[in-house]
Amino acid sequence: MIQWFDDLTVGMRYKGGEAEVTRDDIKRFAAEFDPQPFHLDEAAAEKSMFKGLAASGWHTAAIAMRLAVALRPFGPHPLLGLAVDELRWLAPVRPGDVLRIEGEVVELTPSRTKPQGTARVKWTVYNQNDEPVLTFTPTVIVPRHPNS
Amino acid sequence: MIQWFDDLTVGMRYKGGEAEVTRDDIKRFAAEFDPQPFHLDEAAAEKSMFKGLAASGWHTAAIAMRLAVALRPFGPHPLLGLAVDELRWLAPVRPGDVLRIEGEVVELTPSRTKPQGTARVKWTVYNQNDEPVLTFTPTVIVPRHPNS
Repeated sequence: MIQWFDDLTVGMRYKGGEAEVTRDDIKRFAAEFDPQPFHLDEAAAEKSMFKGLAASGWHTAAIAMRLAVALRPFGPHPLLGLAVDELRWLAPVRPGDVLRIEGEVVELTPSRTKPQGTARVKWTVYNQNDEPVLTFTPTVIVPRHPNS
Repeated sequence: MIQWFDDLTVGMRYKGGEAEVTRDDIKRFAAEFDPQPFHLDEAAAEKSMFKGLAASGWHTAAIAMRLAVALRPFGPHPLLGLAVDELRWLAPVRPGDVLRIEGEVVELTPSRTKPQGTARVKWTVYNQNDEPVLTFTPTVIVPRHPNS
């Protein structure tokens, strides 16, 4: 079971559950946080570069967080990113899309002074056609095993 | 008025409006996207490293998007980030905090082949005590003036 920094290895992979994105979800998130026409209104979205309603990128990122939290990648330790690098939106997320997440541990750095380490996990969100729609790489502090 | 890539200069600054973050907002966002105890429950949050209820970092980022969209930094052209780098959460966001946003154009790269350029704006979100709570740097494509 993964519980401590010491249990992680570079190349370790996570596979997460699924989340469906509805038309209502897309419009509700956009109305509150990203009120641009292509996230709010089908007719306006048809005329935009998206050629149809698409979720706000921040909405997709928030769904990714939910899927990552559910995976408990560090066991009982929280998923607290002080930093996220390289957020990349690769394809639009549409009403009815079913998203899933995969992660890979890409870097592990033990602290020299504290009983902890920093882990970087590259997460990729895929849609139901196995197209990647989002990647991002948070840096998270994970405690070391008490006996390490 | 800023309308086209050609109207932007490195060092140009934006100052945005304010958004209050309520206890209910924090819990509602967390319940949907980041259901960890320190974003959901006061008693659990007191015992966490946050020492009190704190907003999900993705919630703060979504509020930042709303404040940035309201600024219309590229005039009529949408705020469509294909990439965001260097998301950094610098301090917790608490119930009752009033956030505001400032931006600075840090990089401008005209396309060699298309009538557009890429603009990088570093955004900083401050709380009511002028403490920075979040910085992030999106890369956005902005069209060139038709006569450029």
